[in-house]
Amino acid sequence: MTTIKQLLLIYIFFFFPSSLASIISGEDGYRLWLKYDRLNQQSITFTNYVPFAQSWYVGGHSATSKAISDELEYAFNGLFGKSHRVVQQNAKLVIVYGADATTLYPQHARQLSRLNDEGYLIKIVGQGQKQKVLVLANTDIGALYGSYALLRKIQTGTNKAALNLESQPQTDIRVLNHWDNPNRHVERGYSGQSIWNWHKLPTYIDQRYIDYARANASIGINGTVLNNVNANAIMLRPDYLKKVKALADTFRPYGVKVYLSVKFSSPQLLGGLDTSDPVKTKVQQWWKDKVAEIYQEIPDFGGFLVKANSEGQPGPGDYGRTHAEGANMLADALKPYGGIVMWRAFVYANEKNEERSKQAYSEFKPLDGQFRDNVLVQVKNGPIDFQPREPYSPLFGATPNTPMMMEFQITMEYLGFSTHFVYLGPMYEEVLKTDTYAKGQGSTVGKVVSGGVFPYKYTGMAGVSNIGMDRNWTGHIILQSNWFVFGRMAWQPDVSAEEVAQDWVKMTLSNNQKVVDSVTKLMMSSHETTVNYMTPLGLHHIMGTGHHYGPAPWVDNLGRADWTPVYYHRATKDGIGFNRSPSGVNSVAQYLSPYRELLSNPDTTPEKFLLWFHHLPWDYKIKSSGRSLWDELAHRYYLGVEQVANIGEQWNALEGLIAESQFRQVQMSNLIHLQEAKWWRDACMLYFQSLSGKPIPDDLAKPQHDLKYYQSLTFPYAPGQGH
Amino acid sequence: MTTIKQLLLIYIFFFFPSSLASIISGEDGYRLWLKYDRLNQQSITFTNYVPFAQSWYVGGHSATSKAISDELEYAFNGLFGKSHRVVQQNAKLVIVYGADATTLYPQHARQLSRLNDEGYLIKIVGQGQKQKVLVLANTDIGALYGSYALLRKIQTGTNKAALNLESQPQTDIRVLNHWDNPNRHVERGYSGQSIWNWHKLPTYIDQRYIDYARANASIGINGTVLNNVNANAIMLRPDYLKKVKALADTFRPYGVKVYLSVKFSSPQLLGGLDTSDPVKTKVQQWWKDKVAEIYQEIPDFGGFLVKANSEGQPGPGDYGRTHAEGANMLADALKPYGGIVMWRAFVYANEKNEERSKQAYSEFKPLDGQFRDNVLVQVKNGPIDFQPREPYSPLFGATPNTPMMMEFQITMEYLGFSTHFVYLGPMYEEVLKTDTYAKGQGSTVGKVVSGGVFPYKYTGMAGVSNIGMDRNWTGHIILQSNWFVFGRMAWQPDVSAEEVAQDWVKMTLSNNQKVVDSVTKLMMSSHETTVNYMTPLGLHHIMGTGHHYGPAPWVDNLGRADWTPVYYHRATKDGIGFNRSPSGVNSVAQYLSPYRELLSNPDTTPEKFLLWFHHLPWDYKIKSSGRSLWDELAHRYYLGVEQVANIGEQWNALEGLIAESQFRQVQMSNLIHLQEAKWWRDACMLYFQSLSGKPIPDDLAKPQHDLKYYQSLTFPYAPGQGH
Repeated sequence: MTTIKQLLLIYIFFFFPSSLASIISGEDGYRLWLKYDRLNQQSITFTNYVPFAQSWYVGGHSATSKAISDELEYAFNGLFGKSHRVVQQNAKLVIVYGADATTLYPQHARQLSRLNDEGYLIKIVGQGQKQKVLVLANTDIGALYGSYALLRKIQTGTNKAALNLESQPQTDIRVLNHWDNPNRHVERGYSGQSIWNWHKLPTYIDQRYIDYARANASIGINGTVLNNVNANAIMLRPDYLKKVKALADTFRPYGVKVYLSVKFSSPQLLGGLDTSDPVKTKVQQWWKDKVAEIYQEIPDFGGFLVKANSEGQPGPGDYGRTHAEGANMLADALKPYGGIVMWRAFVYANEKNEERSKQAYSEFKPLDGQFRDNVLVQVKNGPIDFQPREPYSPLFGATPNTPMMMEFQITMEYLGFSTHFVYLGPMYEEVLKTDTYAKGQGSTVGKVVSGGVFPYKYTGMAGVSNIGMDRNWTGHIILQSNWFVFGRMAWQPDVSAEEVAQDWVKMTLSNNQKVVDSVTKLMMSSHETTVNYMTPLGLHHIMGTGHHYGPAPWVDNLGRADWTPVYYHRATKDGIGFNRSPSGVNSVAQYLSPYRELLSNPDTTPEKFLLWFHHLPWDYKIKSSGRSLWDELAHRYYLGVEQVANIGEQWNALEGLIAESQFRQVQMSNLIHLQEAKWWRDACMLYFQSLSGKPIPDDLAKPQHDLKYYQSLTFPYAPGQGH
Repeated sequence: MTTIKQLLLIYIFFFFPSSLASIISGEDGYRLWLKYDRLNQQSITFTNYVPFAQSWYVGGHSATSKAISDELEYAFNGLFGKSHRVVQQNAKLVIVYGADATTLYPQHARQLSRLNDEGYLIKIVGQGQKQKVLVLANTDIGALYGSYALLRKIQTGTNKAALNLESQPQTDIRVLNHWDNPNRHVERGYSGQSIWNWHKLPTYIDQRYIDYARANASIGINGTVLNNVNANAIMLRPDYLKKVKALADTFRPYGVKVYLSVKFSSPQLLGGLDTSDPVKTKVQQWWKDKVAEIYQEIPDFGGFLVKANSEGQPGPGDYGRTHAEGANMLADALKPYGGIVMWRAFVYANEKNEERSKQAYSEFKPLDGQFRDNVLVQVKNGPIDFQPREPYSPLFGATPNTPMMMEFQITMEYLGFSTHFVYLGPMYEEVLKTDTYAKGQGSTVGKVVSGGVFPYKYTGMAGVSNIGMDRNWTGHIILQSNWFVFGRMAWQPDVSAEEVAQDWVKMTLSNNQKVVDSVTKLMMSSHETTVNYMTPLGLHHIMGTGHHYGPAPWVDNLGRADWTPVYYHRATKDGIGFNRSPSGVNSVAQYLSPYRELLSNPDTTPEKFLLWFHHLPWDYKIKSSGRSLWDELAHRYYLGVEQVANIGEQWNALEGLIAESQFRQVQMSNLIHLQEAKWWRDACMLYFQSLSGKPIPDDLAKPQHDLKYYQSLTFPYAPGQGH
């Protein structure tokens, strides 16, 4: 039955109007980068690798070993139209781990012993008929990672000769953070509801849960924090822990551990205690009991993520205790089971009325050394809040004794939601490659995070997820690449964003060289493009209030001054920008020399950060272009829109080379992208012009509407708002 | 490219572990009943119909004519693996409408002229090589319906001989009501978010919108109310009307008109007026202008649905005006464009403190004749609120001069959300076939609704949608059948629920006789089963507060008495049931003789309504069984659970005969169904026992927990709650 049923799919797709055919097309984006579409039999890749698909062996009997076999069977039948599992002796592809690996291949035992539990070796040995590919690892999870790496090499058409690989992750904890609420609303989520259907769990296991684990394993992500950092205590209720257990059991074979965000006041909300003071024994005991209950259900539970004393969340500060005292209480409860605490440094709501960009550093730097050894402090990449571009947070490199864990945004809170074509690889790369000088030159943020500067016991990287119920997972096929690159960079912080982009395009869209070259090029410039039409030259936080959708640099009337755009751009008739230099709030003092001095002077400050650190007159001369600051601002806003128009044109030129349903989805999003880029440009230009009084250069098109129009727009139901 | 890409789908599906294969399977429920899977070449159906697939012709040049061709091409390639469109002269299947039909086939012109605009004829003429199938209609939409009817006949393996068909809808307005909010939350929705992505509209047209229109057209649904009856005024804002227009343009070729729910206070909320009093000229003018604006965008806009002066919604009552005065103001604005008003009779919050089940009748019966001729009053099937079973609303048959439009629930608010296996066909059928005696015997509810009792100018049926973003549309594949049967019964109120169930099973699951017989049987008894374990013998409204999830007959402390379960079951140590007979609140007086008298006496009241109309002692003797009321109650609760267990067993016996991903989805839901049926039984038995003091009969298993346990359960995030 099934074959007949499936047979006709090809007829349908071949003969039919895409509007109907794509209904049942596998190309709607659901399969992500694990498509394994049939290779051309004439291709070198096919010829090179088909022998291994015809005789492969996977050792071991664990659930993970089964997962590896399932994936190979699926992938090889997809790529080659054939797959044969054979006994180890006859296998041309041998995947073994642990004792099997060292006994069968003692010659590689030494190299293997140098790898950690998640690392792997891929070897190509022998010649001609005798040629074999070996995937060796110390654990089944290592073998799983090695298998996905091998599949990626095939999917991307890697030459067999280049197949000798040794790899292991450079960070320990590589997690997604889901800002998902129990009602399935995703805070700052733009691709539909939470994929966690709490109501139907633990009994109903959606196929998505399995495919989610496969996708994460394929890029080395080894953990997931299931719920929002603005946490709901209900997640720790016994019935919800059963639901969490069901997900943990589903993810386990793929090496993905579950973590939970916890509300610091849970002992009161859930336990009925009269306090959550971390130094009180009964509070400590409540957490010890709760943690024991969790590990009863989930023996390999990962640990807790905590947002405390920030944006109204409860925390140790409510009792006059430090973040360290709060984190340590949880760490002590988790320690016996090997669990960890990820304590967020995203705080700015504390009493001392300090400039917002400086507060996290001021709060956490003095606590260095006071945290238990199973605590990591999780810091956003920049000192403010996931802006299109920020300088790195000065906490990186500032704490020799406290591991700083990177928190990157994968979701698009300040980057156009799910309709803007933005690849974040270059943004991650820019941050990770910046030098902190913490131990002299070369102490990059990436090295700090991966423990290469200070010998942290644990290291990690977190990515705030962009995943939702949309069929294509992320609301926009191109945005799948941000999930992909986050995983790759968490595994290897110094991997090249361009190399990763190429892999992603080949695996997700097509191996066609024109597609690979063209899309990779668009992706690599897309982040700079977005900065241009949103917040050029170091501008930041000038977007719509609350939902952060669209431009609103004019807003000046929110609960806190440091929530308003005017607080950040400081534009007046005299000039624009925030003086954070020594003559201003001096946040540059939080950076180390020589970077500090560089940032202190507008002439040596990188232009991309100019208005972040300096307030400058409208006629300040921009070194790179010789333009006045006003003209340069105009130039960048207009350039950004041109670049977005170019994305649309370049994409349209690929029609026919990409599956139609993928092509159309991105094409429709590109139209919205262009409309919104113009909106950003025109609204910002008109507003800043109302202060600068300068003309929009003659060679530039005039805005479509007047400022009042843009100021009148409201979006009460823009997606992703907190609730 | 595409073919190669698609080719491998079959390999994958054929060789692979379903957990992976089903990722890209077409069998995940998305295709609904329009699967068109390849027929067995040996089958009579294939032989009978393949000639027509090889030479077909569709007349006309409208977008609808194009839609017909697309569907045939898609369906024939699916069913037969071939499809050839030819010129009319050579065609063996000819689909023509209007002048083409009457000119080409004058011999059928007379029969055609008796059909309305949406009707169609299917004729099989000639013999052997000369045999042709004709689909004739007066309009392109009629031809579209005829084409889907023909495809259904093929999908369900109908003998060619039985192919002479004449059909036209017996109601004019066949609409889905989406209780979808602008934030994409679906009130009483259990299959994920709203499919309307307002944020990305009007530019981004999701493939789902097209497939939604196809599915509706295939069952004769000709309209959709896009937004919640608890309406948000923003839907009438110019930018939102552009979004509505984009959907209208997408649906138009499929004959699906868009309607909007409107908030009565829109003139104040949106227009800035100081009143929304329907007799004020400025208010009337505001609506006239708004309606003109709508028709500017959407020339075939359907009209408005209104929930007024009910559950806190604003309405004409706020100004001391009647529902008629409110409805007529909107009707006058819509009249010039052919638009209509659907005014809901679901009101019970008015001043006069009357028993809830009586209020709609008391309010609307006196208004009969006062409504404009483009107003329909939309009334729920029962006098309370979508309970698992209710007697029909006495408004049906009570208003000779005001069309009563049926409102059925398709969604599962009081029926177990999306995890209970419940086919609603028999429930719809029970209501539609009940005799109102409005014009003597045979004046069934169905006849009243379709204008066969009183000559209504407009007739209609509305179904509150169960559609959401879940891949299978309704959260449970079986629940797709409720969308299907609603459409079929709106078209033909006297169609048999069993016949429709069979069609649905064949089209959605399999033509395998064992599957058809077994699943149809389960579906036909599933509604009675649900009534048994939830609310047997006429019990009603005893479910959890607010979310209506699970049992809570003990709740007695809500804002209004008539929101509490205890108000409805009236159980005491002496007995149970609501005395609505002449000796009680006498709601039976709202029914016509002889039904009224029948319901006035417990001995003649149908047992299914016993406790709806009568308060009876626990030892009251049940005629059909001879059991005491208490024992009968116990018997039915326990029987219901046994029946649910049987659904699971029967379903499991079909493994291998149904696509695995379909099979598993239902299998997992069945497990939840059984758990929750036991929960209903045990919680209700324990609670009623606490009042009756009677023992649970010895032959019945004892509840798993005590009453306190069931009373302690809370579900703050149960889906579908209003917000």
